[in-house]
Amino acid sequence: MSARADQLARIALNWLLEPGHLIGWEMVQAYGAPEALWRILNDPAGHSATRNTATARLAAGDPLQTAEQLLTRAGEIGARLVVPGDPEWPHQVDDLRTIDLRSSRERVDRDTRPPLCLWVRGQLPLAASLARSVAVVGARAATEYGQRMASEIGFDLASRGWTVVSGGAFGIDGAAHRAALRAGGVTVAFLACGVDRPYPAGNTALFEQIAGAGLLVTEWPPGAEPLRHRFLVRNRLIAAVTRGTVVVEAAARSGAIQTLGRAYGITGRTTMVVPGPVGSAMSVGCHQALRHQPGTRLVTGAADIIEEVGAIGESLAPLPRGPERDRDALDTESARLLEAFPTGNREVTADHLSASTGIDPRTTLRRLALLTELGFVTARDGGYTLNPRRGSPRR
Amino acid sequence: MSARADQLARIALNWLLEPGHLIGWEMVQAYGAPEALWRILNDPAGHSATRNTATARLAAGDPLQTAEQLLTRAGEIGARLVVPGDPEWPHQVDDLRTIDLRSSRERVDRDTRPPLCLWVRGQLPLAASLARSVAVVGARAATEYGQRMASEIGFDLASRGWTVVSGGAFGIDGAAHRAALRAGGVTVAFLACGVDRPYPAGNTALFEQIAGAGLLVTEWPPGAEPLRHRFLVRNRLIAAVTRGTVVVEAAARSGAIQTLGRAYGITGRTTMVVPGPVGSAMSVGCHQALRHQPGTRLVTGAADIIEEVGAIGESLAPLPRGPERDRDALDTESARLLEAFPTGNREVTADHLSASTGIDPRTTLRRLALLTELGFVTARDGGYTLNPRRGSPRR
Repeated sequence: MSARADQLARIALNWLLEPGHLIGWEMVQAYGAPEALWRILNDPAGHSATRNTATARLAAGDPLQTAEQLLTRAGEIGARLVVPGDPEWPHQVDDLRTIDLRSSRERVDRDTRPPLCLWVRGQLPLAASLARSVAVVGARAATEYGQRMASEIGFDLASRGWTVVSGGAFGIDGAAHRAALRAGGVTVAFLACGVDRPYPAGNTALFEQIAGAGLLVTEWPPGAEPLRHRFLVRNRLIAAVTRGTVVVEAAARSGAIQTLGRAYGITGRTTMVVPGPVGSAMSVGCHQALRHQPGTRLVTGAADIIEEVGAIGESLAPLPRGPERDRDALDTESARLLEAFPTGNREVTADHLSASTGIDPRTTLRRLALLTELGFVTARDGGYTLNPRRGSPRR
Repeated sequence: MSARADQLARIALNWLLEPGHLIGWEMVQAYGAPEALWRILNDPAGHSATRNTATARLAAGDPLQTAEQLLTRAGEIGARLVVPGDPEWPHQVDDLRTIDLRSSRERVDRDTRPPLCLWVRGQLPLAASLARSVAVVGARAATEYGQRMASEIGFDLASRGWTVVSGGAFGIDGAAHRAALRAGGVTVAFLACGVDRPYPAGNTALFEQIAGAGLLVTEWPPGAEPLRHRFLVRNRLIAAVTRGTVVVEAAARSGAIQTLGRAYGITGRTTMVVPGPVGSAMSVGCHQALRHQPGTRLVTGAADIIEEVGAIGESLAPLPRGPERDRDALDTESARLLEAFPTGNREVTADHLSASTGIDPRTTLRRLALLTELGFVTARDGGYTLNPRRGSPRR
């Protein structure tokens, strides 16, 4: 089958069945995406479980035609599709196939499978950005204490080269994303809706910043609404793509605790919580998880977290690189900064680059972090140099 | 040997060698207390380790004569001596003989052995009072949050029939003792000095209350000063006599954390900490213990603590009773209250008893708790009845 046919079939299946669909995913494993789609569309006697789910969607339009439209729409909004087999595919999501089904009472936990495809907005390579990542999640109605802890943790993790993954929500999620951006680090928001309409709307400016310096990722196609159920399905991705999940603040039985439960069910993922004052409703979920979920670890900051998720010595290892991306794919600011580097192997400071390009210092630092991540430049003590093979302007 | 000779020899050995002395205790196990004392006094070539410790003390006076004086002094201040073999002896302290020596870097942890004798002030039977007990300990420089948590925990444990054991210090210890007293429950303070000079002096009123409604206990004879080293030796007793130790607040490497470490080294003792806000120096020790001491449990209140230390169903079991104490041994207020009970099996309220005896309501409640504990009366919903065999006035 062609890559294009596989892409379109995956988009169509995802649209018909909703992400994580158990039978849909199993059929794709058995037959490949195009044949799985064909069987579902043409064998009404068979896959009743999938037909039931898909009936309403089928009435709305032809799946493959819809898939074509969604791909076009994605191109218009600067988003791309990533599917298994692409160099950018984060293979760790496939661990969702082996999640311990018996460990959860929630149907959404038991019945959801790995994603068929991911929509991505932002310039970093997805797999490499997630290779050394930690989820920092928690309550929307976070306390000041919780937001301060999320900021500290997000900033410190990002400063030490760890990608901060979260859900883009108000409260803890937003504080973690913002702090990672302030640190000039990498942050990735996993959404429960289309990348063109990230939710909540109140975080629109934040989402734009994340798209600029990090990544917005979702299983739902452009235009998809943030339905309530989707957040729980989305949470399994946050748990699966990261090495560990930290809940900073959470009420009992909250979404963040569900994410922690998913992480617990996936081999090799560390579950962590930040303690808080007894009596704070926003720490109840954290304390309960620590009491009742075996293996959950108390952490008080980035150092503790890295101790938990990083193998010994590994926290000093360089960030894994994704497939090299062409200079043409860079955003305008990054490209301007790259042009502004002196020739030869001479070092230059961020201040100098900011002055010579007219890009404000904060954005300059963020773009330089991106260029470093992508392998165009190397960061040294207080300065940057071009990498000879990648960074030099084409001549 | 006579009981009196054993008592005097134990007092003398304790005075010569300091409580917990490794060789002294081993010699008592091997030869009995009188012969152990005789050997130490008469065989300078042998027990050099004990002689070195004892030299200064020997210059101060004859050990057996000193022991006689100390017993007399104890009688004057209303204290009694309890030794192994007495019905009151809390056998769980003997578990200190099997403490895992390798687990600690502290010499005081490695080298201290079970007590040879205990000085007790207060009217409750010692062993019975400690049979269902929890240690609630922590920082002297506790925060308001820590003191509130210690009060809640002390009150709730005492209300549910658990004895609250602590060290009588300012901060967490004092808050736990006071709350147990407020609840009309049993509280026991283990001191690092003589029962006639409990330390700190600022808690003198509290110590008097504890002596009235609970117990003051120490290994040090009347007149002994609260030397710094003694607190660490004392801490092992707090860990050993209780089913578990809860640290409410503690700085890193504090005395409370040392107590927790002792509890960790004794088979069957549960180690627990109360979490607090990250960033509070007084919660650092708690969080570190939770991260680095295997098996340490987070608890957020008395319900969690009872879940940890009480076997299933057992938390409803009646408080074990010590040897019956004669009515003559009761304090005047308790005796007056007992006389004020109506004849027959009729129930009477605390208010009624307070009014008819002229004893203030708070003291009445505390004395009734004592009388209940001693088996003279039975507490029912809001009222009390005399127990036919014990409580009835002699006729």
